[in-house]
Amino acid sequence: MIINDNFFMKLAIDEAWKYQLLTYPNPAVGCVVVKNGEILSIEAHKEAGMPHAEVNALKTAYLKKHPNDVIKTKRKSEDIHEYLIKNHNGFFNDCEIFVTLEPCNHIGKTPACANLLKELKPKRVIIAHDDTNKIASGGCETLKEANIDVSLGCMKKEAYELLFPFIKWSENTFVFYKMAQTLNGSIDGKISSNQALAYVHTLRDKIDLMVIGGNTVRTDKPTLDARYIAGRAPNVMIYSKNKIFDTNIPLFKIPNREVIISDDLFRLLDYKFVMIEGTYNLLDTLKERIDYLVLLVSPKIRKGENALNEIDMDFEIVHENFIGQEKIIYLKRKS
Amino acid sequence: MIINDNFFMKLAIDEAWKYQLLTYPNPAVGCVVVKNGEILSIEAHKEAGMPHAEVNALKTAYLKKHPNDVIKTKRKSEDIHEYLIKNHNGFFNDCEIFVTLEPCNHIGKTPACANLLKELKPKRVIIAHDDTNKIASGGCETLKEANIDVSLGCMKKEAYELLFPFIKWSENTFVFYKMAQTLNGSIDGKISSNQALAYVHTLRDKIDLMVIGGNTVRTDKPTLDARYIAGRAPNVMIYSKNKIFDTNIPLFKIPNREVIISDDLFRLLDYKFVMIEGTYNLLDTLKERIDYLVLLVSPKIRKGENALNEIDMDFEIVHENFIGQEKIIYLKRKS
Repeated sequence: MIINDNFFMKLAIDEAWKYQLLTYPNPAVGCVVVKNGEILSIEAHKEAGMPHAEVNALKTAYLKKHPNDVIKTKRKSEDIHEYLIKNHNGFFNDCEIFVTLEPCNHIGKTPACANLLKELKPKRVIIAHDDTNKIASGGCETLKEANIDVSLGCMKKEAYELLFPFIKWSENTFVFYKMAQTLNGSIDGKISSNQALAYVHTLRDKIDLMVIGGNTVRTDKPTLDARYIAGRAPNVMIYSKNKIFDTNIPLFKIPNREVIISDDLFRLLDYKFVMIEGTYNLLDTLKERIDYLVLLVSPKIRKGENALNEIDMDFEIVHENFIGQEKIIYLKRKS
Repeated sequence: MIINDNFFMKLAIDEAWKYQLLTYPNPAVGCVVVKNGEILSIEAHKEAGMPHAEVNALKTAYLKKHPNDVIKTKRKSEDIHEYLIKNHNGFFNDCEIFVTLEPCNHIGKTPACANLLKELKPKRVIIAHDDTNKIASGGCETLKEANIDVSLGCMKKEAYELLFPFIKWSENTFVFYKMAQTLNGSIDGKISSNQALAYVHTLRDKIDLMVIGGNTVRTDKPTLDARYIAGRAPNVMIYSKNKIFDTNIPLFKIPNREVIISDDLFRLLDYKFVMIEGTYNLLDTLKERIDYLVLLVSPKIRKGENALNEIDMDFEIVHENFIGQEKIIYLKRKS
């Protein structure tokens, strides 16, 4: 394997994917700090309101060489910024910073990363993808004006795929279809482990709207909350032509939850971040509307009702990962 | 992500998996050289008779800091050994060597790696798994006697999974079942890309015996050679109770190929490295005999005959990788 800019950027991209969709409404971003060839840190942005990837990576890198430094106790982005600007003492001058997205240039919930990097003066900043958000962009220029060597475009295609959900929900709506199955496409009974279910509940806690088929509501009477992580129950749209439901089931009883019963798919466009949960039947109906299929695959073969269906769809695998012993595969619909 | 011994060993393990099964009868082994925290090389053993992982990694590491050195022209293991022993000049004294398997201690087709490392005197050698092969083992002792700091057992479970096919074919027989399908388990028509087919042909070139179902031979009349890579056509066992076949089909016409028609599964034990190609029906019949399921997954959903079946099998995902835009998943049968 060749150890070059792509190698380090791939580490940053893979780290960011661990938090894909969970950073909403922010983009998933990863950052790697390399000092004289030595990797000091591989970090990511984990959740909106938490420090950006660069801040996490700069802090971890500094700690790697100063393990007992007081920066260990700093959690808030502005505190880490302030501390590093005062105490860096040239530490980053021989560092290369790999970041999957152009460092932000505006002061939002956290101070601007481009400004922090300008002060720390690393030897080089390698950026995979420019910022498509007009408010936050301009980081590249800020760095160049400070005479920092900036490279743009390393692994741009991979970084674009990482950024894609953010681009979609920033412009209008990002819709993903979540499905769980065995290796052979069987969907009967309990498929996923509790660890995978906790991940699904983490997603439910983040989304603006959850869509579910009317038949599933009638048959399974699901609550559709985020109890595994003590999270927020999402608003629900029951996709159904028949508008009559037993409203005594738990789904309808959760305070502050909105439930829509509709078969008008244009209503999805009122939301930015939509998850559909279902199996192959509903996928067939909604396939033109989805951006991603997020497929949880349990490593077993089971008899039972399965994926026998009339759908023809092509995807690109944009990422995959493990949740415990199960696979999660992120598939982008080819249109 | 924490950057520690496990991080570097994982790089070695993942590199080795790229050549899993292709190193037969040798084990798949990976090696990473780290000099003062900087990764200099990530290499693997690629094929029997070619240099071991350590030799590849030491050469690449040396070249990284001496890019125009004459070592570049050395291809044969003994030449690289000899050159490094003469010219290392202490280069590796501040290096840590991560290797997934205990360095070999005997002179086989290539000189002993333990001896080479003893001469190069790295700061530390980190070994994931001890060598189970009695002839080659003893590398650890050789290094310790030379006062090299040796750590054994880093990521041992992962290294064991990497080593598992080697352990099986060394002791008796390793059998894997190769299957291709779409995301939803459909097996109709041409599933795999040419790139994936070339990989299957590379496997066919390595194995001792290929097993195929009688119905497939009757219906598809496959040649079962390795033409995509201009490789050797494997010996074939047609698994069938009915012994009558049209021997005018190409399968029977390949010179120097043995074809057995049998339904006696004990005959598999006459071979060390066996691949079965088929779909869910044959898997159901042979499921008790297989060690691995090697599943090629094409990222599409297709209607058609699929995985609807009566099998209940549980697996552990031991590795997965990309072949172009498709997934290859290595599943170990849970018994």
